[in-house]
Amino acid sequence: MSRPRPLRVALIGTGFMGAAHSHAWRTAPHVFDLPPVDRSVICGRDPQRTREAAAKFGWLESSVDWREVVARDDIDIVDICTVGETHAEMAEVALAAGKHVICEKPLANTVEEAQRMTRAAQRAQARGVVSMVAFNYRRVPALAYARELISQGRLGEVRHVRAQYLQDWIADPDFPLVWRLQKDKAGSGALGDIGAHVIDAAEYLTGQRIERVSAMLHTFVSERPLAENMVGLSGTGGADRGEVTVDDAALIHATLSGGAIAAIEATRFATGRKNSVRIEINGSRGSVAFDFESMNELLFHDADLADIEGGFRRIYVTEPDHPYAGAWWPPGHGLGYDHTFVHEVVDFVRAIGSGTPPTPSFAEGLHVQRVLEAVEASARTGSTWTAIDQDEEGRS
Amino acid sequence: MSRPRPLRVALIGTGFMGAAHSHAWRTAPHVFDLPPVDRSVICGRDPQRTREAAAKFGWLESSVDWREVVARDDIDIVDICTVGETHAEMAEVALAAGKHVICEKPLANTVEEAQRMTRAAQRAQARGVVSMVAFNYRRVPALAYARELISQGRLGEVRHVRAQYLQDWIADPDFPLVWRLQKDKAGSGALGDIGAHVIDAAEYLTGQRIERVSAMLHTFVSERPLAENMVGLSGTGGADRGEVTVDDAALIHATLSGGAIAAIEATRFATGRKNSVRIEINGSRGSVAFDFESMNELLFHDADLADIEGGFRRIYVTEPDHPYAGAWWPPGHGLGYDHTFVHEVVDFVRAIGSGTPPTPSFAEGLHVQRVLEAVEASARTGSTWTAIDQDEEGRS
Amino acid sequence: MSRPRPLRVALIGTGFMGAAHSHAWRTAPHVFDLPPVDRSVICGRDPQRTREAAAKFGWLESSVDWREVVARDDIDIVDICTVGETHAEMAEVALAAGKHVICEKPLANTVEEAQRMTRAAQRAQARGVVSMVAFNYRRVPALAYARELISQGRLGEVRHVRAQYLQDWIADPDFPLVWRLQKDKAGSGALGDIGAHVIDAAEYLTGQRIERVSAMLHTFVSERPLAENMVGLSGTGGADRGEVTVDDAALIHATLSGGAIAAIEATRFATGRKNSVRIEINGSRGSVAFDFESMNELLFHDADLADIEGGFRRIYVTEPDHPYAGAWWPPGHGLGYDHTFVHEVVDFVRAIGSGTPPTPSFAEGLHVQRVLEAVEASARTGSTWTAIDQDEEGRS
Amino acid sequence: MSRPRPLRVALIGTGFMGAAHSHAWRTAPHVFDLPPVDRSVICGRDPQRTREAAAKFGWLESSVDWREVVARDDIDIVDICTVGETHAEMAEVALAAGKHVICEKPLANTVEEAQRMTRAAQRAQARGVVSMVAFNYRRVPALAYARELISQGRLGEVRHVRAQYLQDWIADPDFPLVWRLQKDKAGSGALGDIGAHVIDAAEYLTGQRIERVSAMLHTFVSERPLAENMVGLSGTGGADRGEVTVDDAALIHATLSGGAIAAIEATRFATGRKNSVRIEINGSRGSVAFDFESMNELLFHDADLADIEGGFRRIYVTEPDHPYAGAWWPPGHGLGYDHTFVHEVVDFVRAIGSGTPPTPSFAEGLHVQRVLEAVEASARTGSTWTAIDQDEEGRS
Repeated sequence: MSRPRPLRVALIGTGFMGAAHSHAWRTAPHVFDLPPVDRSVICGRDPQRTREAAAKFGWLESSVDWREVVARDDIDIVDICTVGETHAEMAEVALAAGKHVICEKPLANTVEEAQRMTRAAQRAQARGVVSMVAFNYRRVPALAYARELISQGRLGEVRHVRAQYLQDWIADPDFPLVWRLQKDKAGSGALGDIGAHVIDAAEYLTGQRIERVSAMLHTFVSERPLAENMVGLSGTGGADRGEVTVDDAALIHATLSGGAIAAIEATRFATGRKNSVRIEINGSRGSVAFDFESMNELLFHDADLADIEGGFRRIYVTEPDHPYAGAWWPPGHGLGYDHTFVHEVVDFVRAIGSGTPPTPSFAEGLHVQRVLEAVEASARTGSTWTAIDQDEEGRS
Repeated sequence: MSRPRPLRVALIGTGFMGAAHSHAWRTAPHVFDLPPVDRSVICGRDPQRTREAAAKFGWLESSVDWREVVARDDIDIVDICTVGETHAEMAEVALAAGKHVICEKPLANTVEEAQRMTRAAQRAQARGVVSMVAFNYRRVPALAYARELISQGRLGEVRHVRAQYLQDWIADPDFPLVWRLQKDKAGSGALGDIGAHVIDAAEYLTGQRIERVSAMLHTFVSERPLAENMVGLSGTGGADRGEVTVDDAALIHATLSGGAIAAIEATRFATGRKNSVRIEINGSRGSVAFDFESMNELLFHDADLADIEGGFRRIYVTEPDHPYAGAWWPPGHGLGYDHTFVHEVVDFVRAIGSGTPPTPSFAEGLHVQRVLEAVEASARTGSTWTAIDQDEEGRS
Repeated sequence: MSRPRPLRVALIGTGFMGAAHSHAWRTAPHVFDLPPVDRSVICGRDPQRTREAAAKFGWLESSVDWREVVARDDIDIVDICTVGETHAEMAEVALAAGKHVICEKPLANTVEEAQRMTRAAQRAQARGVVSMVAFNYRRVPALAYARELISQGRLGEVRHVRAQYLQDWIADPDFPLVWRLQKDKAGSGALGDIGAHVIDAAEYLTGQRIERVSAMLHTFVSERPLAENMVGLSGTGGADRGEVTVDDAALIHATLSGGAIAAIEATRFATGRKNSVRIEINGSRGSVAFDFESMNELLFHDADLADIEGGFRRIYVTEPDHPYAGAWWPPGHGLGYDHTFVHEVVDFVRAIGSGTPPTPSFAEGLHVQRVLEAVEASARTGSTWTAIDQDEEGRS
Repeated sequence: MSRPRPLRVALIGTGFMGAAHSHAWRTAPHVFDLPPVDRSVICGRDPQRTREAAAKFGWLESSVDWREVVARDDIDIVDICTVGETHAEMAEVALAAGKHVICEKPLANTVEEAQRMTRAAQRAQARGVVSMVAFNYRRVPALAYARELISQGRLGEVRHVRAQYLQDWIADPDFPLVWRLQKDKAGSGALGDIGAHVIDAAEYLTGQRIERVSAMLHTFVSERPLAENMVGLSGTGGADRGEVTVDDAALIHATLSGGAIAAIEATRFATGRKNSVRIEINGSRGSVAFDFESMNELLFHDADLADIEGGFRRIYVTEPDHPYAGAWWPPGHGLGYDHTFVHEVVDFVRAIGSGTPPTPSFAEGLHVQRVLEAVEASARTGSTWTAIDQDEEGRS
């Protein structure tokens, strides 16, 4: 029997996410049972840097013309790892060309863009074309397992969500004004970059939608040195200064469709917290708690047990039956950040194979975008409770 | 030299707080250097139960007439451990009679009551009479030490406060309608009972005042069986049901006088969290984090250290130089919940001896009351940002 | 009905343990249901210091003549809190005088002394006189609960014991040569002072006896400044130096009567560990783990649960049904070091009332003494496996 | 400039370690700056399974004749991932053929084999051929950083090593008799398989050599069902039973060349501990503690800080300057088990490039083998202290 023609991937973006997705494309077929995948082209803006990225990340070709690449007949999948402002156009073009699209989060910089993308995705889906927004924290085994527990009713009626995404990389006022601090490029600050993750996680885990928010945004440092060189998330600052046009921190209260209430926070000023994605959910029958800084652990309190022997138990999420874990190593051998991207690629490729639309869909990405927009609207209007439009597009 | 005449104490209240304060009065003079103290009278409502409380808790006399006791010439100190609705009258009468007063929190059920009490305290202070509101969590050594670190500038500019008081004792809808769930008796629910503690702690630790709040209150279970017997916090429920008139949970956003922002939460529905008073404070130079369920530990991140060796360090707050700890046991031998009341008594008695007004003053208690009222006002008006009156009374 | 004549206590010793036991005698009757107890006499060596101790710790009288006190008709209980070399004589005299005796651990400095004490206790028991050795860690609620779990079979067949008592208070070579570092006074070093606790705990928890040991003792710092002033465990050193005649650390392998094997360690050189009593026990059906530095928590792994949801659960040992906890505060309000002594007094006084011999008996103290002696013998002979005599005296 | 000819690798072994090493060879050149590497041939015993492994793990060719492959001129590197009994012959043949050799641990099943291998490696080294034994835990960033701290003197004089490798995968008596439980195949049980890792780690971290050991070995379950199918570490058991010929647990006391003493334990019966490699080291100036189940964290106590602010600090070992971490993701994004193999390959390939012999050398592997043998000898002779031969071969 002949080997099937490999799926051919074009990845756009050579930065942090480009590296992470490249790792995933290199690794997924060698660990999970997947159809063959070719890392065909990586696209960037600078020819030299893109060539280097191709060599380093393991892509057959490089290109500075994403449109041309996306138009090629031999490309099956387009993986968008660029800044938010470019997502909508790239996705629309790719979907129109019949390519399966996986797009980094947040889906777009505005609701309007996200709507266009969602409509494009829905049109494409009718033709068997698959799309997905890359909320990679859904693919942390501990969180995927938490969702299983909750959807099985093990927490009973969910009442509280406490979700925080805490970082500290711009706590220093002299940290330069990188693109992530500019509204025109990034859409928003902590809110869209990291808050989007915990907003999505809150909904993913509970199976409830955020219906209304009351929120505040805050910028602690309003002016910063202009960035001169960027490496990863960082860079060096020059003598000139510019205005920070995004939020440093977002504080959100929300009500969810199933009756839960949520306190959500995202900040880049939590000194000492490097990438602390913390989620605690309390229900009538139990609770779960998670911190990405100990990503292989899920704390689970099962209130069905007698009080005398109850307590949060640390489930080390490396057992064969835990989500994704069985394909890796024996129990007790934990995974890392990059494994989440591998899992994402696995689910995406399998969705292509099966024809089942993967999650989170662009519609779900749009929904998160609407939550982000509602947060901004609420923050602008004195934390007024602001409803999130739950129209059909927003349903997954 | 003759032994000084002991300070004579009358305690009002025979419940949970009466027991805790009794323990403190019994213990403090035997561990700390204090003038002698006599546990003279305990006051309650039921003669038999009060007599039993006197015997059990170690008081010389019992009484069901607190007014008579407070009027006695031989009583120096009145310790108010009753439900909130009675605080104002008792404190006013006691202060007018020239008694030093320590009063359980929250100071009162309304701002109006707290104002009257504060004015009474200020009048009394002019005559050398001392008063204090009993926010016992200030006397957890780890939190007192956190305050030292912050006031020494070790955290730099404080930016974030994240404070939660999580319990789960009414998560069961069949838990009875005890007095703490009735607005006329308790003033409010989770908000005043436990939220007050973290509101006070947020201000105590940062040295900043809450200026504005945007908040929501939520009641998950609106009807419960009427309580028939009460033991400690609990009791059994009968067949009849009544309305829960207080909040089950409070979610608060706040801005502080020094530029910090705060996310505060209090709930009795956090399944698996028994008495989790969690506070994290992030500043430009460092952070602290605390959970009362590990009350002898303070986590401190010192951002002045090189990144490569930085991290939250678990300070086991049992060293001789830690607040209160030196009077107890050698390093490594932790304290418990009841020790906080001992420390409270120590500070109060020393303040009487030195004539220095103790903290937190009734004025500070009033301020917390105003925050509670602002939270309720904000919650009633769609989380509108509501300013807290910072008049002179409110200054400590 | 007339109040029963109180039990009258004489306590010998005014140091760290004298303070801790005084706290227990003051507190126990006010928290637990106990017959009345009078703190009649405290005995010491120096008249002035003993008078001060009486005043500070709350005893009616002081004395420097323990023999006279023990002979008094009105004394019912003798509580021995002195250095190990004095235990045997005091206990024998007190038991002969018909006094109930509680004696600090280790029971004695030699097996021969412990045998005499045990025989005296057994003779006295025939006359209704009660005796107990004060291994207070048995009264940590978390450990008492661990024993319950194990005795109920929840761990199945016990295979591994891992027990460590880690301190660091003499890690500094200039720490002075206090009595605990002198063999003639203390009997041994880390071995008897703290190792005895974990040896007892290993047996208490598993219900198995140590049968054979292979051990090493080590002294890292062999000479120290002579002590000039002692306060608590500490003191200051002078210019002259003396020889350390005890072990700084003990490493023990042991086999237990039920087939388990144990690795036990005691050291005063574990820099950063202040009073870390750590015990982990693995059985065929589950495991428990404990660290006294988080004394209100017991970790329990229940292997009967499905692997996918298994994990060590942190039982916060403050529920009403947990050992000792119900008499204190509502769930979630943890206890401290001194509470263990209160529990010890409670069990001792109740044993007097019921006539049931309390545990641990002097015979159990003797058994621990034999283990200590076997450890020393093994260490002297190249870690030869050395059997512990399990004669009838040793049975509890 | 033309791209250099890639290094061509042949890997022998298709099991758990074959998968892990394959992942490393696939990943290392795409994350770290390395010369190009080709995954040329994977060798196994069964043609079909080896072909499948080649496809799955990403090797160009498969072979069932390792001798032929090792003899090929185009192969530069031989990676030995087979059972211990085969290591010696494979390594000798490969080294004689001028191939660089990386060999899984333990280096061999006997000291005699390890000596032959070490002599072969030393002969080969004279010809520029490089060899390394794969103790992958040295490549955990947290442990590599711990070594940096210790070698910089941050712990002062090292006094205590406490090292445990705890697993539970054969706690069930019905777990089948897989090859790891057969002495002729595996050499020893827990001792060589996992104890070897912590023995190596104890020496690596402290920079001291184990000089003498006193040890016991124990087998809890002496007979098991014969294995019928093996998957990963596991398999299913049949009706027939066979004898377990290896240890289930090893308990070791050791003295180290720099004056430290060590308590080391390895077991497969620690129910609930999946892959808990725990190491704590106490020195005069500080301590470190580590548990592989939280592999991105190193606890460090710096005793140079004032006592009042001292404590174990949790260093999240993901900063750019931490060993290996800079090549991966921004701070806060942790790594997993498989990353340790990537780091191993990086160090090995760089050593080939630079001509500097990598560590751990075969000589170090031989030394660990001697420790294992001394442990067995001591255990056979009643835990007699047994010296480890420290001859020149054993020096790194």
